[in-house]
Amino acid sequence: MSNEQLTMNKVDCVAIVSGGMDSVTLLHHLVKNEGRRPAVITFIYGQKHDKEISLAQWHAELLNCPDTVALDLRGLRPLFAASALVNANTPIPDITEVQGDSQPATYVPNRNMIFLALAAAYAETHGVTDIFYGAQAHDMYGYWDTTPQFLQSLNQVYGLNRQTPVQIKAPFINYTKTDVLRAGLALAVDYGTTWSCYEGESLACGRCPTCAERLAAFAAVGIPDPLPYQEHEKSGA
Amino acid sequence: MSNEQLTMNKVDCVAIVSGGMDSVTLLHHLVKNEGRRPAVITFIYGQKHDKEISLAQWHAELLNCPDTVALDLRGLRPLFAASALVNANTPIPDITEVQGDSQPATYVPNRNMIFLALAAAYAETHGVTDIFYGAQAHDMYGYWDTTPQFLQSLNQVYGLNRQTPVQIKAPFINYTKTDVLRAGLALAVDYGTTWSCYEGESLACGRCPTCAERLAAFAAVGIPDPLPYQEHEKSGA
Repeated sequence: MSNEQLTMNKVDCVAIVSGGMDSVTLLHHLVKNEGRRPAVITFIYGQKHDKEISLAQWHAELLNCPDTVALDLRGLRPLFAASALVNANTPIPDITEVQGDSQPATYVPNRNMIFLALAAAYAETHGVTDIFYGAQAHDMYGYWDTTPQFLQSLNQVYGLNRQTPVQIKAPFINYTKTDVLRAGLALAVDYGTTWSCYEGESLACGRCPTCAERLAAFAAVGIPDPLPYQEHEKSGA
Repeated sequence: MSNEQLTMNKVDCVAIVSGGMDSVTLLHHLVKNEGRRPAVITFIYGQKHDKEISLAQWHAELLNCPDTVALDLRGLRPLFAASALVNANTPIPDITEVQGDSQPATYVPNRNMIFLALAAAYAETHGVTDIFYGAQAHDMYGYWDTTPQFLQSLNQVYGLNRQTPVQIKAPFINYTKTDVLRAGLALAVDYGTTWSCYEGESLACGRCPTCAERLAAFAAVGIPDPLPYQEHEKSGA
């Protein structure tokens, strides 16, 4: 193997990729725009929509990312059981039910802190300091752990590490979902191989908060979403 | 069940207990001095000294803690493999090898951030905001994630949570190991049922950093450690 190839294969950051629109777009942005070599980390945590995981791995392979790990966190299920994303007995709310809610039922207890802490350990193991994640401004509902203030405070903590002062970067933190979509389309991202819907069905529901945001973004850009959706019998679908 | 019993059984905080001197003393302090009702969380993360886990559970039962969970994190082993505490091919250093080292081989990548993030999710699930852990000043070597500055910065992050603003408390953070031991002896803690040694042997080694600190504390107080130690053939043991 040539020196050039060795350099090509060396990881220079960590990217958290779920397989959704934001994180897949982020991965394409890092590789194509920034020339980064991310180690990709994705998480199996008992989410109903676990089909997103194989799509995260698919994009990591597509972009020749040299090191990908899917961490199995299903042992942590007791911690996450309160969330509608995990608990079979708690229905996923419609977008109309979460508008204006500062911490809706789709919130998973402390999930982002846990994912970022695991990604930071992965970064330390690789000896790299940059961690990227796809946090993005939510227009219609909110999570405390996707805000610029959250990121700034957390980086103050990680800056205390004496050997590998990890820093977390979220290039899309001030983007709307439409901004993310526009960025991804310019990078030729195939959104037919991303998964957003919180439900675990074979077709996306079109009603849950993340489906609603996604469909609104495609409508704003004026192109159809390549992903197939369920037909709804109810009016208003 | 009477109302009084129901009140007695209600969890009012989370305590991270490893089964070592500091966290076991902390648990006795919380229950006996402070009248708290901690939910106890302990972690199986591939540590060589996993015998500490059953001792954590033993003390939780002794103190009638109403809810104890041992989270199995062995799926995270790839993240922790760099540490001498986990990797079978990396020997545990002697205390003489870590003195003055700001991040010795016994450091586990981002372990405390991960454990605290999991404990915070556990606290959110219980609807309680106080998390206690046994961070304690290290006289002879250092970890970045046990300092007052670390704690203060991390609490700024957790204070951003909109529903359950968890706060992490470390009552022993300015204690020496000798201070912890004195506090525990006043609470009649049986240190024969705590485990500190980083090695996974049947008897404590007496040489690793945590054994050395522990033995120095007992020597300072002037009583023998009730735990049996290996006899060493080498001189200086």
